[in-house]
Amino acid sequence: MHNHLLIKDKKRSGPIIKEMHITPIAITDPPLLNAAGIHAPYALRTVLELVTDDGISGISEIPGNSDIDQALEYSRSLVIGSDPYHLNQLNHSLEAHFSQETASERGDAPWDQRKLVHVFSALEVACLDIIGKLQNRPIVDLLGGKMRDTVPFAAYLFFKYEGAGGVLEKGKDPQATGWAAARQEEAIDPNGIVAQARAMCHAFGFKSIKLKGGAFEPRLETDCMLALYEEFGEAVPLRFDPNAIWKPETALKYGLEMEGILEYLEDPVRGQENMAQLKKKLKTPLATNMCTTSFEEIPRSIQLGSEDIILSDHHFWGGLRASMELSRMCRTFGRGLSMHSNSHLGISLAAMVHLGAALPEVPYALDTHYPWQSEDVIIGGRLPIVDGSVAVPEGPGLGVELDRSSLQTLHENYLACGIKKRDDEAEMRKYHPEWVFQKVRW
Amino acid sequence: MHNHLLIKDKKRSGPIIKEMHITPIAITDPPLLNAAGIHAPYALRTVLELVTDDGISGISEIPGNSDIDQALEYSRSLVIGSDPYHLNQLNHSLEAHFSQETASERGDAPWDQRKLVHVFSALEVACLDIIGKLQNRPIVDLLGGKMRDTVPFAAYLFFKYEGAGGVLEKGKDPQATGWAAARQEEAIDPNGIVAQARAMCHAFGFKSIKLKGGAFEPRLETDCMLALYEEFGEAVPLRFDPNAIWKPETALKYGLEMEGILEYLEDPVRGQENMAQLKKKLKTPLATNMCTTSFEEIPRSIQLGSEDIILSDHHFWGGLRASMELSRMCRTFGRGLSMHSNSHLGISLAAMVHLGAALPEVPYALDTHYPWQSEDVIIGGRLPIVDGSVAVPEGPGLGVELDRSSLQTLHENYLACGIKKRDDEAEMRKYHPEWVFQKVRW
Repeated sequence: MHNHLLIKDKKRSGPIIKEMHITPIAITDPPLLNAAGIHAPYALRTVLELVTDDGISGISEIPGNSDIDQALEYSRSLVIGSDPYHLNQLNHSLEAHFSQETASERGDAPWDQRKLVHVFSALEVACLDIIGKLQNRPIVDLLGGKMRDTVPFAAYLFFKYEGAGGVLEKGKDPQATGWAAARQEEAIDPNGIVAQARAMCHAFGFKSIKLKGGAFEPRLETDCMLALYEEFGEAVPLRFDPNAIWKPETALKYGLEMEGILEYLEDPVRGQENMAQLKKKLKTPLATNMCTTSFEEIPRSIQLGSEDIILSDHHFWGGLRASMELSRMCRTFGRGLSMHSNSHLGISLAAMVHLGAALPEVPYALDTHYPWQSEDVIIGGRLPIVDGSVAVPEGPGLGVELDRSSLQTLHENYLACGIKKRDDEAEMRKYHPEWVFQKVRW
Repeated sequence: MHNHLLIKDKKRSGPIIKEMHITPIAITDPPLLNAAGIHAPYALRTVLELVTDDGISGISEIPGNSDIDQALEYSRSLVIGSDPYHLNQLNHSLEAHFSQETASERGDAPWDQRKLVHVFSALEVACLDIIGKLQNRPIVDLLGGKMRDTVPFAAYLFFKYEGAGGVLEKGKDPQATGWAAARQEEAIDPNGIVAQARAMCHAFGFKSIKLKGGAFEPRLETDCMLALYEEFGEAVPLRFDPNAIWKPETALKYGLEMEGILEYLEDPVRGQENMAQLKKKLKTPLATNMCTTSFEEIPRSIQLGSEDIILSDHHFWGGLRASMELSRMCRTFGRGLSMHSNSHLGISLAAMVHLGAALPEVPYALDTHYPWQSEDVIIGGRLPIVDGSVAVPEGPGLGVELDRSSLQTLHENYLACGIKKRDDEAEMRKYHPEWVFQKVRW
């Protein structure tokens, strides 16, 4: 039905995509607590590789989910034979494809929308990796060039049970030292959280700290933030994220108690309306990656005044160029912009760093789960975090290359671990059989 | 003050800009009427050429204005020695430069803001032309690739006095035939306008028609639109643009009279508030290139609901990538997007076509003054308009190359004609000595 818009490549002006490889992998993940339960011993990612007819490989990494892998499979017929530069057309075709595919089942449900943005994000980053290699330029140059040589990240603290995930599961590795040992420690109270913060900041040099909350009652979690402030003082900006599990009155009470010690409070309550109401009563800036998570939700966010800062994620917002468009929108409407993270490896980190380097400003250190992972799928191993920052990779494209042996190992982990979708609630029931997820708990 | 953000090019990964040539030119322009007066016999443009150290030339064209030429000169120290990919940093430096330059004089006046966007637009398009040549890809591919092979434009009608401008001034060239002859004809009433429309559509195959109004009293201009509808019927979308010179009650009266015959009504009244009020009372969509003309004006446009369609202009909105960002904003907030034009040559037209080809959709044919010009500065002469559309140039970058001999001739015209800034009011006084510009006349 949109055929009148489609372009025939009458004149080949460059390479076309000949191969598409979708590889689900499972990576070791510690038992990190959050409002939805607890991380399973393995977190899933999907690695996409596109290869052109002249042998140039472009890669990307997205959250692993068998439905999204299947959606990526759907896109194969659109991708093979296409020009990696023709991303507008690819996005347009995907929009048409997915709307035809599931219109009767889903209506306007957000789930399918997210499938589309994940799929396009995976394809776009891999195509930009190819384009960068064709030009011998880093991806940041395809986004207008870098504003900074290194991109700052925050220490991302979690309440957690003992263990480092993977085959160690709930146990600890007594051989581990430094952060590798600290990463295994239980942290379920202020002392544990402060110790985790100390160890993580010592190992990586982070200059901002975020605590993922929503796991314990608000009194305990607020006490952890007060303990972090006591330990680190004003020099280290602090953020707290209870994942929208608090009632408005709870958020107001503890928000007021933390007034003055937080750089921002992330998703204290659920929904744009509740966020907007709370924002009127607190001086602490409110950030979100839950109430305003797509372009479709921006108009109502603007109308209501739901948040001060949007935590973008190129995996959820439809890629790196879309994230630059979001940046313009945030500047236009007086929203700050920073970055959300999920458990991820070095391919996603490299993409986040290229984007972070291109943004006009980075007033808030970005989120990353990277210290919680120990493996990677890139040649040369894990990207270093130095003084809390990651340097923009200097090679062409993403500047990281696929380690095929590691990819194979992590794919075998995927096949062996039996996990097909993230389910933190089911994992939590292994510890607490009666546990049920509640959208709003306290 | 922003030095901590500036990047040193420690590692050269590509060419740098070595030469910058700013050439003001004057092009023949017919005596076209509008709300601000009448076009002088010459319209001004400025052609920018950047040349890299390995001899790659990138070009662009912006509206001519000695103040903006001077602002371009200011940018020279930032541009020479810089990497053409590093546009984010260039824009950032220009923002800092211009705010320091004129902060005390101008406050928040729109004029200086426009200087910045013009300068950055000129530099960005020339840099994208270089980048496209480096990659051997058309600029549309740097914007995500083309959605269409040709971009539709509208016939742009004007009330006018006899003559074709330039050395012919108020006279006519009796040798001219076809559109070249029709272009010289007077058009000051419905018959003249319909004849102009017929001739222009016949010559170029346009499938939409716009009349620039604001020159005569509303009754006469509305009658012209009714005559066009009578002549062309529903098959040819019609637009009318009185350049915000109407009072609200006038706009409502004639807007209601034209209800049902217009594709859109452009800037019937002045200011976002008046536009928003009128929009509530008319079914005809309202378009603007006067009330919402910058990102800074978007939030109030959204709050008030000032217009249905934004007529962008990459010269005013800060370049081609910024225009893609505007496109995302328009889709997000339910605004249509089309394109505004000023008297221009083929370099600007090529840039408009690359942008138009990359946009997700082009629901409204774009504006262009191109048929009113007869010269050009590109090798091979003027770009053809076929069936009302312009094909995306196929060469790398803009796909058009500077004709240095024509550039020299038109620069000599500039030196000879004595015009340094557009002043339609002064020109009108040559015909009507008592004439004064009024922001709102009828």
